[in-house]
This record gives sequence, C-alpha cells and structure tokens, in this order.
Amino acid sequence: MKTAIIGSGFIGRAWAITFARAGHEVRLWDKNADALPKALAFIDEMLPDLADNDLLGGFAPAEVRARIHLEADLAAALDDVDHVQENAPEQVELKRALFADLDRLAPAKAVLASSTSAILPSAFMEHLPGRQRGLVCHPINPPYLVPAVEVCPSPWTSQEAMGKAADFMRSCGQSPLVMKREIDGFIMNRLQGALLEEAFRLVADDIASVEDIDVGLRDGLALRWSFMGPFETIDLNAPGGVRDYAERYQGIYANIFPSVQHRVDWAGPVMERVEAERSALLPRDKLGERQMWRDRRLMALLAHKRKAAKDIGK
Amino acid sequence: MKTAIIGSGFIGRAWAITFARAGHEVRLWDKNADALPKALAFIDEMLPDLADNDLLGGFAPAEVRARIHLEADLAAALDDVDHVQENAPEQVELKRALFADLDRLAPAKAVLASSTSAILPSAFMEHLPGRQRGLVCHPINPPYLVPAVEVCPSPWTSQEAMGKAADFMRSCGQSPLVMKREIDGFIMNRLQGALLEEAFRLVADDIASVEDIDVGLRDGLALRWSFMGPFETIDLNAPGGVRDYAERYQGIYANIFPSVQHRVDWAGPVMERVEAERSALLPRDKLGERQMWRDRRLMALLAHKRKAAKDIGK
Repeated sequence: MKTAIIGSGFIGRAWAITFARAGHEVRLWDKNADALPKALAFIDEMLPDLADNDLLGGFAPAEVRARIHLEADLAAALDDVDHVQENAPEQVELKRALFADLDRLAPAKAVLASSTSAILPSAFMEHLPGRQRGLVCHPINPPYLVPAVEVCPSPWTSQEAMGKAADFMRSCGQSPLVMKREIDGFIMNRLQGALLEEAFRLVADDIASVEDIDVGLRDGLALRWSFMGPFETIDLNAPGGVRDYAERYQGIYANIFPSVQHRVDWAGPVMERVEAERSALLPRDKLGERQMWRDRRLMALLAHKRKAAKDIGK
Repeated sequence: MKTAIIGSGFIGRAWAITFARAGHEVRLWDKNADALPKALAFIDEMLPDLADNDLLGGFAPAEVRARIHLEADLAAALDDVDHVQENAPEQVELKRALFADLDRLAPAKAVLASSTSAILPSAFMEHLPGRQRGLVCHPINPPYLVPAVEVCPSPWTSQEAMGKAADFMRSCGQSPLVMKREIDGFIMNRLQGALLEEAFRLVADDIASVEDIDVGLRDGLALRWSFMGPFETIDLNAPGGVRDYAERYQGIYANIFPSVQHRVDWAGPVMERVEAERSALLPRDKLGERQMWRDRRLMALLAHKRKAAKDIGK
C-alpha cells in the first residue's frame, strides 16, 4: 500500500520504519523540508540495529530504506495514498488546518489518521467534508518496538474507516486496540495514568520509594502482564476464573478506594523526592545512553516473546 | 539458615521450594499433618521443571528436596530457626492465635513473617510479647517464579527485624520492597487495584473490550515495565527526565481524574461481559492447562531477563 507520513519528528520517522519494513511505500513529508534529511539519518542508523534483532521482517536495511521517499510537496506526498499518518505538534488549531489540507488533497480511498496522544479527534475533525475517514492511530513510541496502537474514532468516523485502519495496522505487525468511542487519554494512557497516580501517591505518602515501586512492577506485576495482560492474569489467579477472582478479592480493592480520591501534583513537592532518587540511580547526563539500553532490551524482549510464543504457545 | 514454613497450601509449598533452592533448611509444618504428603508430591513434581529452566540455582532437584523436612510437631519445626513464614487461611482470629504460639515457641533470634495479602500486621500482632520481630512478607504467587516480595512492618516492628527479613529474602534471590509503614493492599495490590479499577471501568463504559485491554498491556505498557518499572519508563520518556515528563504530560492525567471517582462493582453487571469474553478466549475447563502454560512462559521470561541483564546490562 502507499502511505504518507506527515511530520518527520520522532513519531513520524518511527512510523516510516514501521510501515516500510512491512512492505508499504512511504512518502515522508514535513512542513519544514529541511528537517527531512535529519529524519532519514535517524532511519539509516536504526535499520541495521533492527535487522540484527530480526525486526525487519526478513528484509535487508537497504530494501526497507528504498521504500521511504522524502517529499517536499504535500500534494505529491498524498497522491494515490491509502493511509495518511499525521504527526504534527499537539496544537488543536494547527491540526484543524492541517487536516483540512489533508482531506482536500488525499484521494477518497485514504484513511486520515492522527498520532495525537492528547487531543480527541472530534476537536479537529468535525469541520472536514471527509470526516468519516478521519480517526486517531495512537502509538506507544517507538511503534517499531511496541506493537500496541489505539485506533480511536470521532463521533463521525465510519466503521469502514475503522476497519481499514485496523487492517492496515495489522498488516504492519501492530496490535490495534479498536475503541468503540473517543475518551480522554484513550485506553493505554488511562491505564498508565491510574497506575502512575497511585505510584506518585505512595511516594508522596512515604509508604514506598521510587525504586521499590519499579521493583514491584519489573520483578512482580509486569512479568505476567507482559505476555498475558491484567484480565488473563486474574482469570488464572483463582480456581474458578475471573468471576471467582472478583468475588474473592474485590474486597481488598474496595477497601482501598476511599483512600485514593485525592490527586497528587506529580510536579509538586513529591517530585523533589522522585527526581532525587532517579538522579541517584541514573545521572541526568546518562539519560540518552540509558534510552539506547532501553531500546536494546525492548528488542531482545520482543525476540524472546516471539520465540516463547512459538516454543511454548501464544 | 534454618526456616519453618507454617501451612503447606499453595503458598507454603511455593516458599518451601524458594527457601530450599537457596540452600536454606526448611521444616514444613501443617495444622493438618495429613496435608503434608500432598505438598511434598507437588514439590517433587515442580523441582525437575525448575531445574530444566535453570531455576534451582545450579542445584539438582534431589539436593533441594533433601533440605525440605516434613514436621508434624510445631515446637520441633521451630527449634533453632532463623525465619518463620506463616501461610494460614486469611482469618484474623486464627492468625492471632497462631502467632501467639509461634512467638512462644520460636527462638528469640527468629523473624516471624506472615504471607498475608489482605490483613494488616497490626491486626494480629499487637498482643505478642515479641511483636517487634513480627512483620509481613507478602509474595506474588508463586515466589519461585516471581521475585518481588513486600516486607511490611506493624507499628511495633523493629528496624532490626525488617533488615533481617529483607536480607533473608535477598539471600533467596527475591526482590524485597521494604515498606516504611503498613497500608491496606500494601504496594503491589494498590498498584494492581488502581489499574484493574480503570480496566473494569473501561469495559463497563463500553470503551474497550477485555481483550483490547490485555493487548494494551502485553503488546504495550507492560513491555517496558517488565524490565524497568513505571518510574524509569517515564524518566526515559521525556528529554529532561521524570520532572520534564510530569510537567509535559501531567495535564492528560489531571483531565482524566474527575472521570474516575466512581467505583465499578467488578462482580456486578460488567462481569457478564468480562466472563463471556474470557470464556470465549479460554473455555473454563482449560483454566488448569493454561496455568501450566503461564508458568512455563514465566520461567522462559525469567531466563530471558537474566540473559538480557548479562548481555545488554541491568
């Protein structure tokens, strides 16, 4: 399929890799055409790493690279495309204007998808003549290492467009979460936010350290979640399955609920403690190096999951 | 070290493996001595599986097995022990009476630890002459596959006892979360509960399916959490680290907060939908088989994490 990627920042360039390694043609456009070579340099650096971890779907870096075209002209980028993925800054007016252009210039068959994490599609798609084909495809960055992507409709999005977007994402090896309607935070940020809210509260209330909480996830809760998710985890955690679990253990959670009705300002006094602990564990000038470590660990984890699914079962 | 395990159900027998594979001597006692051979049969079945996955610390199954002794007499079980791990049913009166016996019979040097997940230590330890050595060591079951364990004090627990318990758990290869004071749900169930509460709400409000939420964790959020935890994840998710992240993105979560102030009854109407979806994915008569799959996947994940920590870095 032919795709256009609008905006060549960190998210746009990551989508370019994701689409191209699946065999799709990519036109990469940026309002600031001078930014394009920088995106391409990043892609050229990343592709061999991905190939070394068998994350290019069997293609050589040069084959994937050959599918990515820089395009300075928006109309040319959108010519005959099937999927448009927008990655502009998170400013609603900017997205409104940009989507008017995309809707005007893209062929009728194309789905118009935004990567926004913070703005509901209804806030910048209502005015579009083709609003039935507009929706959000929100990744966890970088999508070539994290398969989950939220497909979120506006109130006007057609089922056809939702189906096309989900199928396209599956064709890229992504795992679409097909939402039934839009909601602030979509799904993953709501789940992440709920957990982080409690994590900041536990630190603010001096119950636990930042590192204790990270240990509790990385050596505890997140192990099973990383291959099953939370519902399958509790389904297997009581003799009679998920209903049995809810009946046995809901009381613990109901007891906790009244004590979690206040927000903690994450950037307020608790941040002194959080930042001091994190800085002691990771000096601030090592963040970039540690991000590279994270990506290598993510690649190795994906390779492990693929092997385990094959050897032990999905 | 010498240890006594009080109660030979699923948690007690799992601790027996965990302590014995670390080289500790284990006396396994049960109020119902007839239950002990059943526990031993489980242990005998599990040890070769663990050995195959290099999860017995280099020991042969027979060597680990030789350290586990069944004991029908409580005083004999407690003779000269350093660590006592209680795993009786979650009934406060029963634990009060049992801990009075343990405190009377165990030598002064011994830490008295409960595996309770639902009862605060203050509720059943206040009356003990040796209450300064009483505390909770709460595992995620089974501890021989999930390293995180919460070490939770009562208001009377000494720093010495907390240090001894944490050191003992580290000697078993566990990752202790050393709590500063007791709180309902301890740490991990509070974090899990916060996420599950939102997960049930998203299903009840018809935003997402059960499977979408599991996909969002297993192909999304939980990948990074499984080797870093949530704080390190956000520390690496903004150019300036965790403070930068909170300042940039807290707004999303603050917006969500007012919409999560109502509880959903997990066992109420939403459960019809949750159970129907889970049953379609996993027939209820396959729960046991799937639990065995889960444990094999957990073992493979632990082996992967150990290798990745060595090859790529911790």
